[in-house]
Amino acid sequence: MSRWSLPPSAIPTAWFNVIPHLTSPLQPPLHPGTREPVGPDDLAPLFPMALIGQEVSTDPWIDIPGEVLDILRLWRPTPLVRATRLEKALGTPARIYFKDESVSPSGSHKTNTAVAQAFYNKQEGIARLTTETGAGQWGTALSFACSQFDLDLKVYMVRTSYEQKPYRRIAIETWGGEVVPSPVDDPNNPGSLGSAISDAVRDCVSRDDTHYSLGSVLNHVLLHQTVIGLEAKEQLEQAGERLPDVVIAPCGGGSNLGGITFPFVPEKDVRLLAVEPVSCPTLTQGTFDYDFGDVAGTTPLLPMYTLGHDFMPPSIHAGGLRYHGDAPLVSQLVRDGRMEAVAYPQGKVFEAAVQFTRTEGKIPAPETSHAIRAAIDEALAAKETGEEKVILFNFSGHGFLDLAAYDDYNNGRLPEEQG
Amino acid sequence: MSRWSLPPSAIPTAWFNVIPHLTSPLQPPLHPGTREPVGPDDLAPLFPMALIGQEVSTDPWIDIPGEVLDILRLWRPTPLVRATRLEKALGTPARIYFKDESVSPSGSHKTNTAVAQAFYNKQEGIARLTTETGAGQWGTALSFACSQFDLDLKVYMVRTSYEQKPYRRIAIETWGGEVVPSPVDDPNNPGSLGSAISDAVRDCVSRDDTHYSLGSVLNHVLLHQTVIGLEAKEQLEQAGERLPDVVIAPCGGGSNLGGITFPFVPEKDVRLLAVEPVSCPTLTQGTFDYDFGDVAGTTPLLPMYTLGHDFMPPSIHAGGLRYHGDAPLVSQLVRDGRMEAVAYPQGKVFEAAVQFTRTEGKIPAPETSHAIRAAIDEALAAKETGEEKVILFNFSGHGFLDLAAYDDYNNGRLPEEQG
Repeated sequence: MSRWSLPPSAIPTAWFNVIPHLTSPLQPPLHPGTREPVGPDDLAPLFPMALIGQEVSTDPWIDIPGEVLDILRLWRPTPLVRATRLEKALGTPARIYFKDESVSPSGSHKTNTAVAQAFYNKQEGIARLTTETGAGQWGTALSFACSQFDLDLKVYMVRTSYEQKPYRRIAIETWGGEVVPSPVDDPNNPGSLGSAISDAVRDCVSRDDTHYSLGSVLNHVLLHQTVIGLEAKEQLEQAGERLPDVVIAPCGGGSNLGGITFPFVPEKDVRLLAVEPVSCPTLTQGTFDYDFGDVAGTTPLLPMYTLGHDFMPPSIHAGGLRYHGDAPLVSQLVRDGRMEAVAYPQGKVFEAAVQFTRTEGKIPAPETSHAIRAAIDEALAAKETGEEKVILFNFSGHGFLDLAAYDDYNNGRLPEEQG
Repeated sequence: MSRWSLPPSAIPTAWFNVIPHLTSPLQPPLHPGTREPVGPDDLAPLFPMALIGQEVSTDPWIDIPGEVLDILRLWRPTPLVRATRLEKALGTPARIYFKDESVSPSGSHKTNTAVAQAFYNKQEGIARLTTETGAGQWGTALSFACSQFDLDLKVYMVRTSYEQKPYRRIAIETWGGEVVPSPVDDPNNPGSLGSAISDAVRDCVSRDDTHYSLGSVLNHVLLHQTVIGLEAKEQLEQAGERLPDVVIAPCGGGSNLGGITFPFVPEKDVRLLAVEPVSCPTLTQGTFDYDFGDVAGTTPLLPMYTLGHDFMPPSIHAGGLRYHGDAPLVSQLVRDGRMEAVAYPQGKVFEAAVQFTRTEGKIPAPETSHAIRAAIDEALAAKETGEEKVILFNFSGHGFLDLAAYDDYNNGRLPEEQG
């Protein structure tokens, strides 16, 4: 047997909060004007109180509302798969497992927090959400979630993506969301995630019926993703494994990484590994400091590894990993030595993606392929030492909407990179 | 509970052969030159003997080889899902279930027969396969399967699809297959499935190491798809249902339709419903007669419902349903009154697809959406009568690579149709 599918009744009913397990206290976000810690009132125009509460909660477990569980059960628990064909191709004694988050309606892990955020906003009487999206992975997930709770949604999409990558824009519209290119006030500007955040926040604060929604970085977002690691832990036990030796995930803002690794933080023998692109090496080359979440410098200051909020990463295919900073929770774990990080160039990542596709069958998203590269390298290292290492990685999303990237790789058109 | 996932160990270990259950004998295919029944020797240049044997077998069950099961278990059994959110939106007392074939590596049911065909060819010492593909659903499935058995693959892709729909071409290449536009000898010709079949067959017969592979229509192809219906039957029992009142699937060549309906043929109270586009109404408007499988008239003559092998259906988004004929097994069941057929115009089909997407979350392929339209109409009829009808349909594939079609629908750009 090489695939473990839990029944919908086995879905975790509480999220795992990593905050009580940190070895040093988490520093608070600071107001961009006063540089004092932000309070609930500062955030209330943007987020519902339930999410603001989760942002600072020190409860070890937080119950998942029944209405959220009902929707998550459309695709959760997701399968845990042992990649026996990849193992064989590598000739490794390691056992490689992946958690398949690509089976969600929008094709990635993003849907886990989208549903929770839509629910809490609806519960607080909000009628409409705004958000930004780059390549569109987050926008699709939130549009699906808003369709489930009958919420209106306006997505500010980075203009270059809006014009060059229409498929995710169409998917957002098919679920009922409205999409506009950003920046809205300058049709000649190609846009950036920073400009799109500014547009979405400006829209939100101008209307009483509207809140803003973020798909990564914040504590409550990572909290909602911990269903991934909780399920994986139970499925590994079913597979006869005690614990993995290493848990691996790609890191952009840090949400899928936090989701699969946090439930393993208390298990001191389990290594946790973040994988990032060499072109945006926040954890491997950045500085731990307070910095803004957006390019314009209007969000609260967050304590995190950062390349500087004005850092402009080169255009790479893993658009979800092009962020100048990291989630404070991930940053803290790296700073405290509980989590490791490694960076790979794009070509090595696609080489791993194609090897995975031809052995295990599924085409991974470019972001996901970073984790596959690291998992393969861990398995090859185990081949050298003969160690029967247990490797777990997060298959965070499929690559059906990223095939143009594979075309570039297949035809030798990937841009050169250092590293 | 609204989703039933069987463990990989519960996969069916034999295919269900519908031939012994037909009420009138199946007429044989005829040689295009002599008009005499074709024998195994006529087909040996194209297919391995194991598949030729399956084509005419009257055994009620045919064992699935272990090597095929090992690969099918990467994603099978597929989930059976009860569409409770769609039911609620419709206000129907009907219970609607769908079998989710979109979770396969290539995103559709086509992978089920692709794996079996690749296996039998490899077993007979074949090194290389050729095939044709229209929009690319079949080409992707066979490319995945060939990667698993280390077979070379050359796909002749209808030139207009090759040029206008690059994503499935890229996916075929990523799994290792070679793709060329067809017709190969005329770069100004937009091509058709008929020309692509001619190219693929010509290539095949010119080389001793090469066989040809077909993704629908033939008896052995439909046989390999019966895992769908066999699993669904078991899962419905788990869900507490005795039998469905009606089983629904889209019909192009007939392979996904045969796959989900054939195991229910012996259950006389279960209605079987084929759904086709009004623009290519083979079962509802065609004639039952011997006709060629390809436009050029070079294949054996098959007994089937046909619009004439030179019928050129208008360009619609459900490319998989643009075929002038139907599988002989499906045709026979319709002629004998055991199976019904209904045709829908494209706009009504997309209306159903969007309603499904906004309730159940998943974006269906345009072909699949035909079954959804019929399922919704059956459920609405049950609402009128108050009947607690049990409806089962085949969710044959996802629509991530068909989003341009949704863009046309969302923006009122679908071409006009009769019906």
